[in-house]
Amino acid sequence: MIFLGVDPGLQFAGFAIAQKKGQKIILLDCGYLKMAQSKNVPERVQIFYEYFQALIIKNQIQVLVLETPFLGKNAQNFLKLGYLRGILYLLAQQNKLQILEFTPTQVKQGVTGYGSASKEQVARAIKQLFPKLQTSSMERSDVTDALAVMLCGLWQQPSI
Amino acid sequence: MIFLGVDPGLQFAGFAIAQKKGQKIILLDCGYLKMAQSKNVPERVQIFYEYFQALIIKNQIQVLVLETPFLGKNAQNFLKLGYLRGILYLLAQQNKLQILEFTPTQVKQGVTGYGSASKEQVARAIKQLFPKLQTSSMERSDVTDALAVMLCGLWQQPSI
Repeated sequence: MIFLGVDPGLQFAGFAIAQKKGQKIILLDCGYLKMAQSKNVPERVQIFYEYFQALIIKNQIQVLVLETPFLGKNAQNFLKLGYLRGILYLLAQQNKLQILEFTPTQVKQGVTGYGSASKEQVARAIKQLFPKLQTSSMERSDVTDALAVMLCGLWQQPSI
Repeated sequence: MIFLGVDPGLQFAGFAIAQKKGQKIILLDCGYLKMAQSKNVPERVQIFYEYFQALIIKNQIQVLVLETPFLGKNAQNFLKLGYLRGILYLLAQQNKLQILEFTPTQVKQGVTGYGSASKEQVARAIKQLFPKLQTSSMERSDVTDALAVMLCGLWQQPSI
């Protein structure tokens, strides 16, 4: 089973792809899609669709893992997050992916052992879990968040 | 120029299609897509995508007209509206449609002359504007709202 975790955003969208082999977790890829602010929202929605469509096919993804969103201070950002989640749902259906969703508390609890952990604590825990991974993309919380949610999906899967 | 107005929703999604010929507005189609509540959200997102994809191609739509959403009492509904707006943006990009958006106040003002009009007043104004249109679908506010927003797009277009 190959898992894709996504932390969607109209400027930066983090992703992480991994596979479980026995007790081992093999990280296949992680990084982010950056979309230029000079593009309008519909253009970015299409770029996002095409980028993740290609990523799903190339990596033969079977499971999509997402964090359930909560309404923050900015309602417009919440709506824009909705655009990208709609696209991810469409991609999941078109590519027959299983969808797993975790609340922010579940993700933080799973990765740090503490449901109210900060973004920095999540990032630190992720860096400890993947000590060999030292790319500049790990400096972005979009990427560490995508790794965190992807791990929740992987951990939930029973070992065969 | 052929205009498509959409009032998106995960249960009922209203639409209206029309064309301007000189001073005349020719209504080509209107109605709604109903999605069974037995389907989960990702399934409905895909149904919505495929339905409107077919509608756009069949009617050779050139302009998509939408109402800008506002955050109501229910944040989850706002997010779900985001899913469908994301899909409409994707369809607009994929089919090279122009996108026009109007605020709820602009739509009410345009159709009834009164920016704080109720849904019922909008529906009544629409029925007066299309007196020959007496289908059961006109009883749904999703359809009259789609007609209202579509008209705003048509009226904005300068006569040739």
